[in-house]
Amino acid sequence: MDFTRPETVLDLQNIRNELVRMEDTIIFKFIERSHFATCPSVYKEQHPGLTIPNFEGSFLDWALLNLEITQSQIRRFESPDETPFFPDKIKKSFLPSINYPQILAPYAPEVNYNDKIKDVYIKNIIPLISRKDGDDINNFGSVAASDIECLQSLSRRIHFGKFVAEAKFQSDIPLYTKLIKDKDVEKIMENITNSAVEEKILERLTKKAEVYGVDPTNKKGERRITPEYLVKIYKEIVIPITKEVEVEYLLRRLED
Amino acid sequence: MDFTRPETVLDLQNIRNELVRMEDTIIFKFIERSHFATCPSVYKEQHPGLTIPNFEGSFLDWALLNLEITQSQIRRFESPDETPFFPDKIKKSFLPSINYPQILAPYAPEVNYNDKIKDVYIKNIIPLISRKDGDDINNFGSVAASDIECLQSLSRRIHFGKFVAEAKFQSDIPLYTKLIKDKDVEKIMENITNSAVEEKILERLTKKAEVYGVDPTNKKGERRITPEYLVKIYKEIVIPITKEVEVEYLLRRLED
Ligand SMILES: N[C@@H](Cc1c[nH]c2ccccc12)C(=O)O
Ligand SMILES: N[C@@H](Cc1c[nH]c2ccccc12)C(=O)O
Repeated sequence: MDFTRPETVLDLQNIRNELVRMEDTIIFKFIERSHFATCPSVYKEQHPGLTIPNFEGSFLDWALLNLEITQSQIRRFESPDETPFFPDKIKKSFLPSINYPQILAPYAPEVNYNDKIKDVYIKNIIPLISRKDGDDINNFGSVAASDIECLQSLSRRIHFGKFVAEAKFQSDIPLYTKLIKDKDVEKIMENITNSAVEEKILERLTKKAEVYGVDPTNKKGERRITPEYLVKIYKEIVIPITKEVEVEYLLRRLED
Repeated sequence: MDFTRPETVLDLQNIRNELVRMEDTIIFKFIERSHFATCPSVYKEQHPGLTIPNFEGSFLDWALLNLEITQSQIRRFESPDETPFFPDKIKKSFLPSINYPQILAPYAPEVNYNDKIKDVYIKNIIPLISRKDGDDINNFGSVAASDIECLQSLSRRIHFGKFVAEAKFQSDIPLYTKLIKDKDVEKIMENITNSAVEEKILERLTKKAEVYGVDPTNKKGERRITPEYLVKIYKEIVIPITKEVEVEYLLRRLED
């Protein structure tokens, strides 16, 4: 897939291949996170002992914001597959623009589910993938760094829904035009859902988690990434939010 | 392993377990890097089209330096297992110090092989793990981000030699005192080398690369992480530089 060549980006087979590759990335990053405790303090604003001068958010927010500021300066968020968590705080790049061709509709960057992704990640995913509950002050930084990796991969995976949506729109413009005009969310949802593909994803994840997720030193009582949890995360979080992205993107597709 | 409790850090079995865990981390990060081309421009100073205002280093250096500045402010380099690539440019943290107990000798932070690690990574490791040769302007940022992950993991792995060295010193103070006084590098090298352990590492790596490194979509002509390359990287780079760290650390161990 090459974002300077639109025909490669809107090919559903290419999109699927990229999504498959992202599964490995997400699993590897979850496994890295699974070595640490939940560390609730990392996610609390103005937490005692972790207060950051002139900053309102959490320890994680501070680390993530500063990374995004750095990466924005080297063009991360010019790329149509990247979505910032802090869209109001990122900077312009000092490098010449890449001038990606317009592949998605111009409002695409406004379809941003990162706040939601961060919320469910903290509330629902961390408890499933962490080794144990509780704080571990020696690893707050490692945990935040690992969380950022997980969040950025999840964000990229979920916002890839925009390419899926655009490809589907292009594949049947009359149908989608009608559904969009009718604001028929239910039918749009029906049309973008491919249960066979979803089933396959979950099967593949089970297999991958079985292969990658085996910790040979397997200490009792310590959680690690399991096929069951991974499937749960995809089924209840990743796939549904991806579809929300697709629907929101499609609903605005007739704007000009 | 808990750096606030010295007895857990100088236990050779704990050190080995940690090194085993780091193998997985390094393999996962190499696999992520293997999706991209070599991208030589990322490593050149003042490269046309990638020149950074008021900065002398490469695109990678800029990204790595800025990440280190951020992470130094949240205490990364207070931790005895972390070594900066830009020791002269990092900042003090705004958080209260963790006050790690002194486990290593006070000069330990000066034993810093990161310049060498970055050099061999660029010159010798990237060509082995990249998918293909050449630049890919759309992924310079992704490549740099992935390189940083690889470099930080390699650096942590290699500088862990300091804990190995300290544990070995403690285990036979009279022997090492004599060898250090004699500046007998050869005998020190002999005493810190455990060929059986090294053999086991390489065997384990082969197995892990076989399991983790399988790319089911396996496109012809595109390199990916192979057991052979991984073993080569450990045998010719990771293990020897770790031993250099150990020797340099030990040679200074009688300083006061
Ligand atoms: N483990 C230490 C040091 C560290 C590792 N990676 C980091 C990233 C950011 C800040 C600190 C760190 C900590 O979590 O504090
Ligand atoms: N793939 C794009 C966007 C991107 C992804 N991750 C990044 C990290 C830093 C900068 C840019 C990026 C690029 O490499 O440019």
